[in-house]
Amino acid sequence: MCQLLGLNANTPTDVMFSFTGFSSRAEEHKDGFGVAFFEGAGVRLFVDAQSARCSPVAEIVRRYPIKSTNIVAHIRKATQGRVALENTHPFERELWGRYWVYAHNGDLKDYAPRLHASFRPVGDTDSERAFCWLMQELAKAHAALPGVAELTATLRELVPQIARHGSFNFMLSNGEALWAHCSTKLYWLVRQHPFRTARLADDELSVDFARHTTLSDRVAVIVTEPLTRDEAWAAFAPGELRAFVDGVLVD
Amino acid sequence: MCQLLGLNANTPTDVMFSFTGFSSRAEEHKDGFGVAFFEGAGVRLFVDAQSARCSPVAEIVRRYPIKSTNIVAHIRKATQGRVALENTHPFERELWGRYWVYAHNGDLKDYAPRLHASFRPVGDTDSERAFCWLMQELAKAHAALPGVAELTATLRELVPQIARHGSFNFMLSNGEALWAHCSTKLYWLVRQHPFRTARLADDELSVDFARHTTLSDRVAVIVTEPLTRDEAWAAFAPGELRAFVDGVLVD
Repeated sequence: MCQLLGLNANTPTDVMFSFTGFSSRAEEHKDGFGVAFFEGAGVRLFVDAQSARCSPVAEIVRRYPIKSTNIVAHIRKATQGRVALENTHPFERELWGRYWVYAHNGDLKDYAPRLHASFRPVGDTDSERAFCWLMQELAKAHAALPGVAELTATLRELVPQIARHGSFNFMLSNGEALWAHCSTKLYWLVRQHPFRTARLADDELSVDFARHTTLSDRVAVIVTEPLTRDEAWAAFAPGELRAFVDGVLVD
Repeated sequence: MCQLLGLNANTPTDVMFSFTGFSSRAEEHKDGFGVAFFEGAGVRLFVDAQSARCSPVAEIVRRYPIKSTNIVAHIRKATQGRVALENTHPFERELWGRYWVYAHNGDLKDYAPRLHASFRPVGDTDSERAFCWLMQELAKAHAALPGVAELTATLRELVPQIARHGSFNFMLSNGEALWAHCSTKLYWLVRQHPFRTARLADDELSVDFARHTTLSDRVAVIVTEPLTRDEAWAAFAPGELRAFVDGVLVD
Protein backbone atom coordinates (compact mmCIF):
# COMPACT_ATOMS: atom_id res chain seq x y z
CA MET A 1 0.00 0.00 0.00
CA CYS A 2 1.17 3.52 -0.76
CA GLN A 3 1.46 6.29 1.77
CA LEU A 4 0.08 9.82 1.70
CA LEU A 5 1.18 13.04 3.37
CA GLY A 6 -0.72 16.32 3.22
CA LEU A 7 0.03 19.69 4.75
CA ASN A 8 -2.26 22.71 4.92
CA ALA A 9 -1.02 25.86 6.67
CA ASN A 10 -1.86 29.50 7.22
CA THR A 11 1.79 30.50 6.61
CA PRO A 12 4.16 29.09 3.99
CA THR A 13 5.74 26.15 5.81
CA ASP A 14 8.50 23.77 4.80
CA VAL A 15 7.95 20.05 4.83
CA MET A 16 11.59 18.99 5.37
CA PHE A 17 11.02 17.47 8.83
CA SER A 18 7.86 15.59 7.91
CA PHE A 19 9.18 14.53 4.52
CA THR A 20 12.34 13.08 6.08
CA GLY A 21 10.29 10.74 8.25
CA PHE A 22 7.85 10.07 5.45
CA SER A 23 10.49 9.21 2.84
CA SER A 24 12.30 6.84 5.24
CA ARG A 25 9.24 4.62 4.78
CA ALA A 26 10.06 4.36 1.11
CA GLU A 27 11.90 1.03 1.33
CA GLU A 28 8.55 -0.69 1.40
CA HIS A 29 7.17 1.73 -1.19
CA LYS A 30 9.90 1.71 -3.77
CA ASP A 31 7.94 2.32 -6.96
CA GLY A 32 8.10 6.07 -7.07
CA PHE A 33 7.35 9.14 -5.05
CA GLY A 34 6.05 12.60 -5.70
CA VAL A 35 5.34 15.83 -3.92
CA ALA A 36 3.42 18.91 -5.03
CA PHE A 37 3.95 22.33 -3.44
CA PHE A 38 1.52 25.15 -4.11
CA GLU A 39 3.02 28.62 -4.20
CA GLY A 40 0.08 30.97 -4.66
CA ALA A 41 -1.81 29.57 -7.63
CA GLY A 42 1.38 28.00 -9.03
CA VAL A 43 2.56 24.47 -8.33
CA ARG A 44 5.96 22.81 -8.12
CA LEU A 45 5.50 19.13 -8.79
CA PHE A 46 8.43 16.78 -8.19
CA VAL A 47 7.92 13.19 -9.29
CA ASP A 48 10.26 10.27 -9.69
CA ALA A 49 9.70 6.65 -10.59
CA GLN A 50 12.58 5.74 -8.23
CA SER A 51 12.23 5.17 -4.49
CA ALA A 52 12.17 8.28 -2.32
CA ARG A 53 15.14 6.72 -0.46
CA CYS A 54 17.55 6.98 -3.39
CA SER A 55 15.92 9.46 -5.79
CA PRO A 56 18.00 12.62 -6.36
CA VAL A 57 14.72 14.48 -6.65
CA ALA A 58 13.68 13.36 -3.16
CA GLU A 59 17.11 14.45 -1.90
CA ILE A 60 16.36 17.95 -3.18
CA VAL A 61 13.05 18.00 -1.32
CA ARG A 62 14.78 16.92 1.91
CA ARG A 63 17.49 19.59 1.50
CA TYR A 64 15.75 22.68 0.17
CA PRO A 65 13.23 24.40 2.42
CA ILE A 66 10.55 24.94 -0.19
CA LYS A 67 7.76 26.72 1.68
CA SER A 68 4.14 26.24 0.82
CA THR A 69 0.69 26.51 2.34
CA ASN A 70 -0.57 23.35 0.61
CA ILE A 71 1.56 20.25 0.06
CA VAL A 72 0.56 16.77 -1.13
CA ALA A 73 3.14 13.97 -1.09
CA HIS A 74 2.93 10.29 -2.01
CA ILE A 75 5.21 7.28 -1.96
CA ARG A 76 4.13 4.47 -4.21
CA LYS A 77 3.98 0.72 -4.09
CA ALA A 78 2.53 -0.23 -7.45
CA THR A 79 -0.69 -2.23 -7.31
CA GLN A 80 -2.09 -1.24 -10.70
CA GLY A 81 -0.15 0.30 -13.59
CA ARG A 82 3.51 -0.09 -14.51
CA VAL A 83 6.33 1.63 -12.63
CA ALA A 84 6.60 4.69 -14.87
CA LEU A 85 6.72 8.44 -14.48
CA GLU A 86 3.22 8.90 -15.90
CA ASN A 87 1.84 6.58 -13.17
CA THR A 88 3.51 8.50 -10.34
CA HIS A 89 1.37 10.55 -7.95
CA PRO A 90 0.49 13.35 -7.34
CA PHE A 91 -1.40 13.92 -10.58
CA GLU A 92 -2.20 17.44 -11.72
CA ARG A 93 -4.92 18.97 -13.88
CA GLU A 94 -6.28 22.48 -14.46
CA LEU A 95 -9.95 23.28 -13.82
CA TRP A 96 -11.61 26.72 -13.67
CA GLY A 97 -8.21 28.38 -14.01
CA ARG A 98 -6.78 26.63 -10.94
CA TYR A 99 -4.36 23.74 -10.68
CA TRP A 100 -5.59 20.68 -8.79
CA VAL A 101 -3.26 18.06 -7.40
CA TYR A 102 -4.32 14.67 -6.15
CA ALA A 103 -2.74 11.54 -4.73
CA HIS A 104 -4.39 8.21 -3.90
CA ASN A 105 -3.61 5.34 -1.60
CA GLY A 106 -5.61 2.18 -2.08
CA ASP A 107 -6.84 -0.06 -4.82
CA LEU A 108 -10.00 0.26 -6.92
CA LYS A 109 -11.15 -3.01 -8.46
CA ASP A 110 -12.65 -3.09 -11.96
CA TYR A 111 -12.93 0.67 -11.96
CA ALA A 112 -13.62 1.98 -15.47
CA PRO A 113 -15.62 5.21 -15.12
CA ARG A 114 -17.20 6.82 -18.18
CA LEU A 115 -14.79 9.61 -19.14
CA HIS A 116 -16.64 11.57 -21.79
CA ALA A 117 -15.31 15.09 -21.18
CA SER A 118 -11.95 16.76 -21.27
CA PHE A 119 -10.05 14.92 -18.52
CA ARG A 120 -8.30 11.78 -19.74
CA PRO A 121 -5.73 9.61 -18.01
CA VAL A 122 -2.18 9.69 -19.40
CA GLY A 123 -1.01 6.63 -17.48
CA ASP A 124 -2.82 3.37 -16.73
CA THR A 125 -3.69 3.47 -13.02
CA ASP A 126 -7.05 3.20 -11.28
CA SER A 127 -5.92 6.27 -9.31
CA GLU A 128 -5.63 8.59 -12.30
CA ARG A 129 -8.94 7.31 -13.72
CA ALA A 130 -10.62 8.24 -10.43
CA PHE A 131 -9.01 11.70 -10.51
CA CYS A 132 -10.15 12.33 -14.09
CA TRP A 133 -13.68 11.28 -13.18
CA LEU A 134 -13.70 13.57 -10.12
CA MET A 135 -12.49 16.52 -12.22
CA GLN A 136 -15.07 15.77 -14.91
CA GLU A 137 -17.93 15.61 -12.40
CA LEU A 138 -16.77 18.73 -10.52
CA ALA A 139 -16.67 20.57 -13.86
CA LYS A 140 -20.25 19.45 -14.58
CA ALA A 141 -21.49 20.39 -11.10
CA HIS A 142 -20.20 23.99 -11.07
CA ALA A 143 -19.80 26.52 -13.89
CA ALA A 144 -16.93 28.30 -12.17
CA LEU A 145 -14.84 27.88 -9.03
CA PRO A 146 -17.26 27.66 -6.08
CA GLY A 147 -16.41 28.18 -2.42
CA VAL A 148 -14.77 25.50 -0.31
CA ALA A 149 -18.01 24.51 1.47
CA GLU A 150 -19.79 23.95 -1.84
CA LEU A 151 -16.88 21.94 -3.22
CA THR A 152 -16.85 19.83 -0.08
CA ALA A 153 -20.57 19.13 -0.45
CA THR A 154 -20.11 18.09 -4.09
CA LEU A 155 -17.14 15.88 -3.23
CA ARG A 156 -19.22 14.15 -0.54
CA GLU A 157 -21.74 13.21 -3.22
CA LEU A 158 -19.11 12.04 -5.72
CA VAL A 159 -16.54 10.22 -3.59
CA PRO A 160 -18.75 7.33 -2.38
CA GLN A 161 -19.41 6.45 -6.04
CA ILE A 162 -15.68 5.75 -6.40
CA ALA A 163 -15.08 4.38 -2.90
CA ARG A 164 -17.48 1.48 -3.39
CA HIS A 165 -14.98 0.02 -5.89
CA GLY A 166 -12.30 -0.52 -3.25
CA SER A 167 -10.11 1.51 -0.93
CA PHE A 168 -9.91 5.18 -1.75
CA ASN A 169 -7.80 7.20 0.67
CA PHE A 170 -6.90 10.38 -1.19
CA MET A 171 -5.78 13.97 -0.88
CA LEU A 172 -6.82 16.77 -3.18
CA SER A 173 -5.80 20.42 -3.17
CA ASN A 174 -6.37 23.45 -5.35
CA GLY A 175 -3.94 25.62 -3.40
CA GLU A 176 -6.76 27.12 -1.34
CA ALA A 177 -8.03 24.07 0.55
CA LEU A 178 -6.84 20.53 1.17
CA TRP A 179 -9.40 17.73 1.13
CA ALA A 180 -8.60 14.34 2.62
CA HIS A 181 -10.75 11.25 2.36
CA CYS A 182 -10.29 8.11 4.42
CA SER A 183 -11.38 4.69 3.26
CA THR A 184 -9.17 2.56 5.48
CA LYS A 185 -6.51 4.61 7.32
CA LEU A 186 -5.64 8.28 7.75
CA TYR A 187 -4.49 10.40 10.73
CA TRP A 188 -4.32 14.14 11.29
CA LEU A 189 -3.29 16.81 13.75
CA VAL A 190 -2.92 20.58 13.91
CA ARG A 191 0.34 22.10 15.10
CA GLN A 192 -0.15 25.52 16.67
CA HIS A 193 0.86 27.59 19.67
CA PRO A 194 2.13 26.43 22.13
CA PHE A 195 4.55 24.50 19.90
CA ARG A 196 6.58 21.62 21.35
CA THR A 197 9.36 19.31 20.32
CA ALA A 198 8.39 16.25 18.31
CA ARG A 199 10.39 13.12 17.49
CA LEU A 200 9.95 11.31 14.21
CA ALA A 201 8.49 7.83 14.61
CA ASP A 202 10.71 6.38 11.85
CA ASP A 203 13.93 8.24 12.49
CA GLU A 204 16.19 9.63 15.18
CA LEU A 205 15.37 13.20 14.19
CA SER A 206 13.50 15.58 16.44
CA VAL A 207 12.52 19.19 15.94
CA ASP A 208 11.54 21.94 18.34
CA PHE A 209 8.74 23.60 16.41
CA ALA A 210 8.74 26.55 18.84
CA ARG A 211 12.12 27.58 17.43
CA HIS A 212 10.88 27.65 13.84
CA THR A 213 7.48 29.22 14.21
CA THR A 214 5.64 32.35 15.24
CA LEU A 215 2.67 32.55 17.61
CA SER A 216 0.13 32.72 14.81
CA ASP A 217 1.48 29.82 12.70
CA ARG A 218 -0.91 26.93 12.26
CA VAL A 219 -0.44 23.82 10.18
CA ALA A 220 -2.62 20.76 9.69
CA VAL A 221 -0.78 17.54 8.82
CA ILE A 222 -2.66 14.54 7.41
CA VAL A 223 -0.88 11.24 6.91
CA THR A 224 -1.40 7.50 6.42
CA GLU A 225 0.52 6.61 9.62
CA PRO A 226 1.41 9.02 12.48
CA LEU A 227 4.79 10.61 11.74
CA THR A 228 5.81 11.39 15.31
CA ARG A 229 5.80 9.50 18.61
CA ASP A 230 4.89 12.34 20.95
CA GLU A 231 2.01 14.14 19.32
CA ALA A 232 -1.70 13.34 19.55
CA TRP A 233 -2.72 12.11 16.12
CA ALA A 234 -6.48 11.73 15.54
CA ALA A 235 -7.77 8.95 13.31
CA PHE A 236 -10.24 9.60 10.49
CA ALA A 237 -13.28 7.36 10.49
CA PRO A 238 -13.73 5.23 7.36
CA GLY A 239 -15.81 7.21 4.85
CA GLU A 240 -14.90 10.61 6.27
CA LEU A 241 -14.02 13.47 3.94
CA ARG A 242 -12.51 16.50 5.67
CA ALA A 243 -11.58 19.94 4.34
CA PHE A 244 -8.71 22.07 5.71
CA VAL A 245 -8.11 25.78 5.06
CA ASP A 246 -5.33 27.86 6.67
CA GLY A 247 -4.42 24.97 8.96
CA VAL A 248 -7.98 24.68 10.29
CA LEU A 249 -10.42 21.81 9.87
CA VAL A 250 -13.35 23.67 8.27
CA ASP A 251 -15.68 20.81 7.40
CA MET B 1 13.01 39.10 -24.14
CA CYS B 2 12.94 35.54 -22.86
CA GLN B 3 14.95 32.69 -24.27
CA LEU B 4 13.86 29.25 -25.41
CA LEU B 5 15.68 25.94 -25.67
CA GLY B 6 14.19 22.77 -27.16
CA LEU B 7 15.66 19.33 -27.61
CA ASN B 8 14.22 16.43 -29.60
CA ALA B 9 16.19 13.19 -29.79
CA ASN B 10 15.90 9.57 -30.91
CA THR B 11 17.63 8.38 -27.70
CA PRO B 12 17.13 9.74 -24.18
CA THR B 13 19.69 12.54 -23.99
CA ASP B 14 20.74 14.76 -21.14
CA VAL B 15 20.62 18.51 -21.47
CA MET B 16 23.39 19.36 -18.95
CA PHE B 17 25.81 20.81 -21.50
CA SER B 18 23.24 22.89 -23.36
CA PHE B 19 21.47 23.96 -20.18
CA THR B 20 24.73 25.19 -18.64
CA GLY B 21 25.27 27.57 -21.53
CA PHE B 22 21.61 28.46 -21.68
CA SER B 23 21.26 29.24 -17.97
CA SER B 24 24.38 31.43 -17.99
CA ARG B 25 22.23 33.83 -20.02
CA ALA B 26 19.89 34.15 -17.09
CA GLU B 27 21.36 37.37 -15.71
CA GLU B 28 19.42 39.26 -18.34
CA HIS B 29 16.41 36.97 -17.86
CA LYS B 30 16.09 36.91 -14.13
CA ASP B 31 12.35 36.52 -13.68
CA GLY B 32 12.16 32.76 -13.57
CA PHE B 33 13.11 29.70 -15.48
CA GLY B 34 11.61 26.33 -16.21
CA VAL B 35 12.38 23.10 -17.95
CA ALA B 36 10.16 20.16 -18.85
CA PHE B 37 11.54 16.68 -19.52
CA PHE B 38 9.35 14.02 -21.08
CA GLU B 39 10.02 10.47 -19.93
CA GLY B 40 7.72 8.30 -22.01
CA ALA B 41 4.29 9.88 -21.61
CA GLY B 42 5.26 11.31 -18.21
CA VAL B 43 6.74 14.75 -17.63
CA ARG B 44 9.09 16.20 -15.05
CA LEU B 45 8.48 19.92 -14.89
CA PHE B 46 10.89 22.09 -12.90
CA VAL B 47 9.91 25.73 -12.51
CA ASP B 48 11.21 28.53 -10.37
CA ALA B 49 10.36 32.20 -10.15
CA GLN B 50 14.05 32.88 -9.34
CA SER B 51 16.78 33.37 -11.93
CA ALA B 52 18.27 30.20 -13.43
CA ARG B 53 21.65 31.54 -12.23
CA CYS B 54 20.84 31.23 -8.51
CA SER B 55 17.82 28.92 -8.34
CA PRO B 56 18.50 25.66 -6.45
CA VAL B 57 16.11 24.00 -8.87
CA ALA B 58 18.28 25.08 -11.84
CA GLU B 59 21.32 23.77 -9.97
CA ILE B 60 19.67 20.35 -9.86
CA VAL B 61 19.07 20.43 -13.60
CA ARG B 62 22.73 21.32 -14.23
CA ARG B 63 23.95 18.52 -11.92
CA TYR B 64 21.67 15.56 -12.54
CA PRO B 65 21.77 13.94 -15.96
CA ILE B 66 18.04 13.62 -16.45
CA LYS B 67 17.69 11.95 -19.84
CA SER B 68 14.79 12.66 -22.12
CA THR B 69 13.82 12.55 -25.79
CA ASN B 70 11.86 15.81 -25.60
CA ILE B 71 12.91 18.80 -23.51
CA VAL B 72 11.55 22.35 -23.45
CA ALA B 73 13.35 25.01 -21.39
CA HIS B 74 12.69 28.71 -20.88
CA ILE B 75 14.31 31.59 -19.04
CA ARG B 76 12.02 34.51 -18.42
CA LYS B 77 12.23 38.26 -18.51
CA ALA B 78 8.76 39.36 -17.54
CA THR B 79 6.97 41.53 -20.11
CA GLN B 80 3.39 40.71 -19.10
CA GLY B 81 2.27 39.13 -15.84
CA ARG B 82 3.82 39.35 -12.40
CA VAL B 83 6.95 37.45 -11.38
CA ALA B 84 5.20 34.44 -9.87
CA LEU B 85 5.37 30.68 -10.11
CA GLU B 86 2.06 30.47 -11.99
CA ASN B 87 3.48 32.76 -14.70
CA THR B 88 6.62 30.69 -15.20
CA HIS B 89 7.05 28.69 -18.42
CA PRO B 90 6.83 25.94 -19.55
CA PHE B 91 3.10 25.54 -19.05
CA GLU B 92 1.51 22.11 -19.06
CA ARG B 93 -1.94 20.78 -19.88
CA GLU B 94 -3.43 17.37 -20.68
CA LEU B 95 -5.26 16.77 -23.97
CA TRP B 96 -6.37 13.42 -25.47
CA GLY B 97 -4.61 11.57 -22.63
CA ARG B 98 -1.22 13.17 -23.38
CA TYR B 99 0.65 15.91 -21.56
CA TRP B 100 1.53 18.99 -23.62
CA VAL B 101 4.21 21.44 -22.59
CA TYR B 102 4.72 24.85 -24.10
CA ALA B 103 6.99 27.85 -23.67
CA HIS B 104 6.79 31.24 -25.39
CA ASN B 105 9.23 34.01 -26.14
CA GLY B 106 7.78 37.29 -27.31
CA ASP B 107 5.00 39.66 -26.52
CA LEU B 108 1.37 39.56 -27.68
CA LYS B 109 -0.37 42.92 -27.55
CA ASP B 110 -4.03 43.16 -26.55
CA TYR B 111 -4.41 39.45 -26.87
CA ALA B 112 -7.65 38.27 -25.27
CA PRO B 113 -8.80 35.16 -27.13
CA ARG B 114 -12.25 33.71 -26.49
CA LEU B 115 -11.67 30.82 -24.09
CA HIS B 116 -15.01 29.03 -23.95
CA ALA B 117 -13.91 25.44 -23.40
CA SER B 118 -11.97 23.59 -20.75
CA PHE B 119 -8.55 25.24 -20.92
CA ARG B 120 -8.24 28.30 -18.70
CA PRO B 121 -5.17 30.28 -17.70
CA VAL B 122 -4.07 30.05 -14.07
CA GLY B 123 -1.68 33.00 -14.27
CA ASP B 124 -2.02 36.32 -16.06
CA THR B 125 0.34 36.17 -19.04
CA ASP B 126 -0.36 36.58 -22.75
CA SER B 127 1.71 33.40 -23.18
CA GLU B 128 -0.57 31.14 -21.16
CA ARG B 129 -3.68 32.64 -22.82
CA ALA B 130 -2.19 31.72 -26.21
CA PHE B 131 -1.44 28.19 -25.00
CA CYS B 132 -4.99 27.71 -23.68
CA TRP B 133 -6.41 28.93 -26.98
CA LEU B 134 -4.15 26.57 -28.96
CA MET B 135 -5.20 23.61 -26.78
CA GLN B 136 -8.88 24.58 -27.10
CA GLU B 137 -8.67 24.83 -30.90
CA LEU B 138 -6.65 21.60 -31.25
CA ALA B 139 -9.31 19.84 -29.15
CA LYS B 140 -12.03 21.17 -31.46
CA ALA B 141 -10.11 20.22 -34.63
CA HIS B 142 -9.48 16.56 -33.74
CA ALA B 143 -11.60 14.09 -31.74
CA ALA B 144 -8.57 12.09 -30.60
CA LEU B 145 -4.78 12.32 -30.90
CA PRO B 146 -3.97 12.60 -34.64
CA GLY B 147 -0.59 11.93 -36.25
CA VAL B 148 2.23 14.47 -36.20
CA ALA B 149 1.66 15.59 -39.81
CA GLU B 150 -2.00 16.32 -39.14
CA LEU B 151 -1.18 18.21 -35.95
CA THR B 152 1.42 20.25 -37.82
CA ALA B 153 -1.14 21.16 -40.49
CA THR B 154 -3.65 22.26 -37.84
CA LEU B 155 -1.01 24.27 -35.97
CA ARG B 156 -0.09 26.03 -39.24
CA GLU B 157 -3.71 27.19 -39.52
CA LEU B 158 -3.96 28.28 -35.88
CA VAL B 159 -0.61 29.89 -35.15
CA PRO B 160 -0.89 32.88 -37.55
CA GLN B 161 -4.11 33.89 -35.76
CA ILE B 162 -2.04 34.38 -32.60
CA ALA B 163 1.15 35.62 -34.27
CA ARG B 164 -0.56 38.67 -35.75
CA HIS B 165 -0.89 40.04 -32.21
CA GLY B 166 2.87 40.37 -31.74
CA SER B 167 5.92 38.17 -31.54
CA PHE B 168 5.22 34.51 -30.97
CA ASN B 169 8.30 32.32 -30.86
CA PHE B 170 7.24 29.15 -29.10
CA MET B 171 7.99 25.49 -28.51
CA LEU B 172 5.38 22.82 -27.96
CA SER B 173 5.82 19.12 -27.27
CA ASN B 174 3.59 16.18 -26.44
CA GLY B 175 6.51 13.82 -25.82
CA GLU B 176 6.29 12.44 -29.35
CA ALA B 177 7.15 15.50 -31.43
CA LEU B 178 8.56 18.95 -30.77
CA TRP B 179 7.09 21.90 -32.68
CA ALA B 180 8.94 25.18 -32.90
CA HIS B 181 7.58 28.41 -34.34
CA CYS B 182 9.65 31.46 -35.20
CA SER B 183 8.24 34.97 -35.21
CA THR B 184 11.48 36.90 -34.81
CA LYS B 185 14.44 34.67 -33.93
CA LEU B 186 15.12 30.94 -33.61
CA TYR B 187 18.05 28.69 -34.62
CA TRP B 188 18.39 24.94 -34.93
CA LEU B 189 20.82 22.14 -35.73
CA VAL B 190 20.97 18.37 -35.64
CA ARG B 191 23.84 16.63 -33.87
CA GLN B 192 24.58 13.20 -35.34
CA HIS B 193 27.44 10.99 -36.49
CA PRO B 194 30.23 12.02 -36.99
CA PHE B 195 30.09 13.87 -33.66
CA ARG B 196 32.63 16.61 -32.91
CA THR B 197 33.69 18.78 -30.02
CA ALA B 198 31.67 21.94 -29.44
CA ARG B 199 32.45 24.98 -27.28
CA LEU B 200 29.70 26.89 -25.52
CA ALA B 201 29.30 30.44 -26.81
CA ASP B 202 28.58 31.83 -23.32
CA ASP B 203 30.99 29.78 -21.24
CA GLU B 204 34.43 28.20 -21.20
CA LEU B 205 32.96 24.71 -21.31
CA SER B 206 33.45 22.38 -24.25
CA VAL B 207 32.24 18.83 -24.79
CA ASP B 208 33.37 16.07 -27.15
CA PHE B 209 30.00 14.64 -28.19
CA ALA B 210 31.75 11.61 -29.78
CA ARG B 211 32.70 10.43 -26.28
CA HIS B 212 29.11 10.54 -25.03
CA THR B 213 27.18 9.16 -27.96
CA THR B 214 26.68 6.10 -30.12
CA LEU B 215 26.68 6.00 -33.93
CA SER B 216 22.90 6.05 -34.17
CA ASP B 217 22.25 8.93 -31.72
CA ARG B 218 20.57 11.95 -33.23
CA VAL B 219 19.40 15.09 -31.48
CA ALA B 220 17.82 18.28 -32.79
CA VAL B 221 18.48 21.40 -30.72
CA ILE B 222 16.37 24.54 -31.23
CA VAL B 223 17.27 27.74 -29.44
CA THR B 224 16.76 31.53 -29.44
CA GLU B 225 20.50 32.22 -29.91
CA PRO B 226 23.16 29.70 -31.06
CA LEU B 227 24.61 27.93 -28.00
CA THR B 228 27.99 27.01 -29.44
CA ARG B 229 30.66 28.80 -31.46
CA ASP B 230 31.79 25.96 -33.70
CA GLU B 231 28.62 24.37 -34.98
CA ALA B 232 26.54 25.35 -38.01
CA TRP B 233 23.27 26.76 -36.62
CA ALA B 234 20.53 27.36 -39.20
CA ALA B 235 18.11 30.25 -38.75
CA PHE B 236 14.35 29.81 -38.93
CA ALA B 237 12.59 32.21 -41.27
CA PRO B 238 9.97 34.44 -39.62
CA GLY B 239 6.60 32.65 -39.74
CA GLU B 240 8.10 29.18 -39.99
CA LEU B 241 6.67 26.32 -37.94
CA ARG B 242 8.79 23.17 -37.91
CA ALA B 243 8.14 19.72 -36.44
CA PHE B 244 10.85 17.41 -35.12
CA VAL B 245 10.53 13.68 -34.34
CA ASP B 246 13.39 11.41 -33.21
CA GLY B 247 15.92 14.19 -33.86
CA VAL B 248 14.76 14.63 -37.47
CA LEU B 249 13.07 17.65 -39.02
CA VAL B 250 9.91 16.00 -40.37
CA ASP B 251 7.92 18.99 -41.55
